[in-house]
Amino acid sequence: MQKLRVQNFGISLDGYSAGPNQSIDCPVGVGGMALGEWFFPTRTFRRMHNPDWTANLPDHLSARQDGAAGIDDYFAARGFENVGALIIGRNMFGPIRGAWANYDWKGWWGENPPFHCEVFVLTHHARASVAMQGGTTFHFVTDGIEAALQRAKAAASGKDVQLGGGVATVRAYLRAGLVDELHLAQSPVLLGSGESLFTGLDLLSLGYRCVERVPSSRTTHIVLTRS
Amino acid sequence: MQKLRVQNFGISLDGYSAGPNQSIDCPVGVGGMALGEWFFPTRTFRRMHNPDWTANLPDHLSARQDGAAGIDDYFAARGFENVGALIIGRNMFGPIRGAWANYDWKGWWGENPPFHCEVFVLTHHARASVAMQGGTTFHFVTDGIEAALQRAKAAASGKDVQLGGGVATVRAYLRAGLVDELHLAQSPVLLGSGESLFTGLDLLSLGYRCVERVPSSRTTHIVLTRS
Repeated sequence: MQKLRVQNFGISLDGYSAGPNQSIDCPVGVGGMALGEWFFPTRTFRRMHNPDWTANLPDHLSARQDGAAGIDDYFAARGFENVGALIIGRNMFGPIRGAWANYDWKGWWGENPPFHCEVFVLTHHARASVAMQGGTTFHFVTDGIEAALQRAKAAASGKDVQLGGGVATVRAYLRAGLVDELHLAQSPVLLGSGESLFTGLDLLSLGYRCVERVPSSRTTHIVLTRS
Repeated sequence: MQKLRVQNFGISLDGYSAGPNQSIDCPVGVGGMALGEWFFPTRTFRRMHNPDWTANLPDHLSARQDGAAGIDDYFAARGFENVGALIIGRNMFGPIRGAWANYDWKGWWGENPPFHCEVFVLTHHARASVAMQGGTTFHFVTDGIEAALQRAKAAASGKDVQLGGGVATVRAYLRAGLVDELHLAQSPVLLGSGESLFTGLDLLSLGYRCVERVPSSRTTHIVLTRS
């Protein structure tokens, strides 16, 4: 059975998966980069992203170019196994809100995005698909989350579909009971405000249970599934 | 310096410190007892409570009458060190709301409560102090959280004051910036609804930071302090 999976999704101790005041210079909000500090040093992340991208990371995270193995890398790698397509929200695709002024923006990730599959972008504003290098194609879906899931499953050739984010998109799929597996990485930091993953969302009533909790030195991996 | 400390305070993965539908038969709300599953088996808990109280626990938690040592017991014991007085909210003292119909209710804990110190109960309804066995005296404070803290510090003879709960009381003291140390024990469960500790409370702006995160097999110990 094809699953819809959220993987490697950062969350703070106080339940925020993005900080406040998101902008083009700070796409995950103020403080939000701290949620990725477990992920950036992993071998999986290093191999996915080109050196140019990681050149801007702080020294203590970018020093080991080969990347670290271990618990964090195990979960990072598992998150990308058997993934055949990706769904993301429009705010994760870019900082532009409302109608497209032009079609220059092609995502945060450069000419060769690290996805290498069909990517379905939820938006209210239609746009032609954009083929990138390396096998990534962005499709823009204007008829809702269930339609996007259907198209992504069809594109995934029997593999699972990854739900990339952002927070509002993950919440919409959770509320509809469409997420089969949710892997959170809880960093030992407070964000104080921003986008809360849980507020107003009764995951217990929606059928979710915690099936794994594995602490590492940088984060706590938590896996929820729906029964 | 005398501190105000919240200790051994349970929280779920989704941020609830009490479940929904609290009642006299279910004082921590539906599902809320799961937040104590790390605490009940500890040696510290066993020594504090009399056998009658623990007789009602599930078998897997009550089998070891002597109680377990280890990480959980270390934190449980640390929570009671150097504590000279206790503050609790009225809902933690009992299930009665509004005016006192009579003075029969003397807390959940029997004739010999496990506190053995002065206990300050926040309430809007005045009542004479109640002296219990074993050195516990309940005082009823009607003039607010700062007054209760002043009285508790005076009663603590130079030791710290413990803030016992419930959730609304802890939130009120956090919002006022009066909590010096907050020890959470995050259980790997979802409660789905109930009383959220974090919602609407910007702990980062209030000056709190995570200074310890220690996982055990049953819970994750998290310590926040205010700088």
